[in-house]
Amino acid sequence: MKLRQSPLAPAAFPEMPALAGVRQAAVACGIRTKDRPDACLIELAEGTAVSGVFTRSKTASAPVEWCREALAGGTARALLVNSGNANAFTGAAGVAAVERTAAAVAEILDCKPQEVFLASTGVIGEPLPAGRLVGALPSLGSRLSPSAWPDAAGAIMTTDTFPKGATRHAEIGDELVTLNGIAKGSGMIAPDMATMLAFVFTDARIPAPVLQKLLVPAVEDSFNAITVDGDTSTSDSVLLCATGQVDNAKVSGPADSKLKDFRDALDSLMQDLAQQVVRDGEGAQKFVTIEVAGAASKPAARRIGLAIGNSPLVKTAIAGEDPNWGRIVMAVGKAGEKADRDRLSIRIGGLLVARHGAVVADYDEAPVARHMKGQNIEIAVDVGVGRGKATVWTCDLTHGYVDINADYRS
Amino acid sequence: MKLRQSPLAPAAFPEMPALAGVRQAAVACGIRTKDRPDACLIELAEGTAVSGVFTRSKTASAPVEWCREALAGGTARALLVNSGNANAFTGAAGVAAVERTAAAVAEILDCKPQEVFLASTGVIGEPLPAGRLVGALPSLGSRLSPSAWPDAAGAIMTTDTFPKGATRHAEIGDELVTLNGIAKGSGMIAPDMATMLAFVFTDARIPAPVLQKLLVPAVEDSFNAITVDGDTSTSDSVLLCATGQVDNAKVSGPADSKLKDFRDALDSLMQDLAQQVVRDGEGAQKFVTIEVAGAASKPAARRIGLAIGNSPLVKTAIAGEDPNWGRIVMAVGKAGEKADRDRLSIRIGGLLVARHGAVVADYDEAPVARHMKGQNIEIAVDVGVGRGKATVWTCDLTHGYVDINADYRS
Repeated sequence: MKLRQSPLAPAAFPEMPALAGVRQAAVACGIRTKDRPDACLIELAEGTAVSGVFTRSKTASAPVEWCREALAGGTARALLVNSGNANAFTGAAGVAAVERTAAAVAEILDCKPQEVFLASTGVIGEPLPAGRLVGALPSLGSRLSPSAWPDAAGAIMTTDTFPKGATRHAEIGDELVTLNGIAKGSGMIAPDMATMLAFVFTDARIPAPVLQKLLVPAVEDSFNAITVDGDTSTSDSVLLCATGQVDNAKVSGPADSKLKDFRDALDSLMQDLAQQVVRDGEGAQKFVTIEVAGAASKPAARRIGLAIGNSPLVKTAIAGEDPNWGRIVMAVGKAGEKADRDRLSIRIGGLLVARHGAVVADYDEAPVARHMKGQNIEIAVDVGVGRGKATVWTCDLTHGYVDINADYRS
Repeated sequence: MKLRQSPLAPAAFPEMPALAGVRQAAVACGIRTKDRPDACLIELAEGTAVSGVFTRSKTASAPVEWCREALAGGTARALLVNSGNANAFTGAAGVAAVERTAAAVAEILDCKPQEVFLASTGVIGEPLPAGRLVGALPSLGSRLSPSAWPDAAGAIMTTDTFPKGATRHAEIGDELVTLNGIAKGSGMIAPDMATMLAFVFTDARIPAPVLQKLLVPAVEDSFNAITVDGDTSTSDSVLLCATGQVDNAKVSGPADSKLKDFRDALDSLMQDLAQQVVRDGEGAQKFVTIEVAGAASKPAARRIGLAIGNSPLVKTAIAGEDPNWGRIVMAVGKAGEKADRDRLSIRIGGLLVARHGAVVADYDEAPVARHMKGQNIEIAVDVGVGRGKATVWTCDLTHGYVDINADYRS
């Protein structure tokens, strides 16, 4: 099945500047199909600090387990990513494949295997043809370039309909630093494929422990705030690497005021990438922003937002352009978080639909129905018990989703 | 939209015997549409003990809150159910409607309002036209009959495509008792409609506190073990009423050995009704049984089963007749329960697909693919960490679900 580009795709892949200490190359090495790039190598300068956040799945893939252990070292010299095969649920053979590829990358780039990070996305349960990846390494190593970002973003795609990238600048003290990120994902798992992957690079000099403490909250407000189908992949991975090539002022910790601008840029970049993943959601026709306020806490607000964003009934109503606020009430109720039914209010497209636990007097559905016909849908809920707030992004549930996941046999 | 009967429907509504102390009547009172019965009154003999389990939704409907309070009395004389309007998210007007109808029923049947139980299913957020219900009461009261079970089951339907009933017999000591049950539900919420409802009646003599302790575990293994779309209604209600018209031996408690046969019959009847709800799942083409073993506990096994049964990717794969066991691995992983990836085994249709955390050697997909083409799909998973077991029932996720919930504007 040839997938058409999502109607929610950005106009173009962004212009991504070279970033000191990061070079990329991509190649087609025939892991699953022969006619498209399916591997990319990213080389990182000596002394690059690394942080990472991985899937909470209890059936995590072999490369995820490898990265979790490698993270303890705090430094990264390379990232090798393949699409077409997730190397998940592959038993001892999967572990061996990971060890073999890391060793081969280490040899080519003259570093330790523990400084090589790996990610695989694609079919679950089939042995990874590690030989093809290893065989492609000399070609990848000889073609490393600081300007191959679009190639790298393309090679990690599975059923994505467009490559995903974002770039930002930030000041740390007097120095200007750059952040570049690429991502992939179009369902939490695409047809027979696994995974959301995001890799963010900066030339800033930030120690690994600080980097980790910047990454975790940024993930919370970006990749942990999106949902396509509520399914969690075996391979979700987010890495943040800092090459330290810019000689910025030393930072004392994640809350250092010198990092304010960097934190904002990182949050913005990761939200951009996360929203691109939603915009490529399988079958998506509408981009949905759900703002929850008045919850007992921020995590409670996020759980209510995700309950709304994961509800098949809310998502099909949006697909049908139906301002069906009763389903939003239902989803708030099922979240299991504190909510005061009699103080609940709901806005759709900024228009007040319900408050004090009932539909507003003289409710006029016409303007709300007009909003539902647009491509960007805004739902705002106040659950009336506290000050917790969160925003969640999702897409609608359409015939396209069923087409991709049921009718298509990969 | 005229809904076609589910292909998974039973051949016919069961023959339900009269049950001493229970009379029924149904009527069309025009709550939402004029051409079909939408209210039923069930009269219960004096001294009927009652127990109930209700939705955990934080936005529960007015009748659910009424029933929760009424349950404290332990006795029931009547049950009034309407379809077409859920009386949920209706604020103070909803509470007033409940009080008015309960009082009107109490007057006609000469009992206390607190002995009148109420359930409403249908549109959320619109005021219940209580006057129409009250106006229909004289007609309902005058036509009460011990043999109107099919009428009662029909009047509580919303988007159900067939009425749901089940009957069982059991011995308590030397006495034979009867259990009759009716239910409705076809999504956790149907189009603009709310709710799963189930009402079970017996002529046995069992005190209310014992009845409650029999009902809770029976619900766990029936209505809490099914899922259509993972959405929880504002109005889910299960009531178990015992008229005490059979003079069976006194029972000391829920674990009394004299109740063994009754417990089995109750469990069986409630599983029958719950499975009928799944068989009427919106758009369902296949009935899916998911057996989880080897979990840390029974609740853990159920959560893993529900994670599989709620996964849109598993459900669309089943719709597509695709033996996509990688998605089952993914769903086990996301359940958040303890599982040993390297001891995980999966059977589909009894055929071993994966074990020891990898696909079986010499895996032959052909017989598994044949099983997937059938109407009854069996998935068995052993997660390899303990002795907890549970069974969950669900249906596939098809274009029919999207049709009903997106394309249809009620």
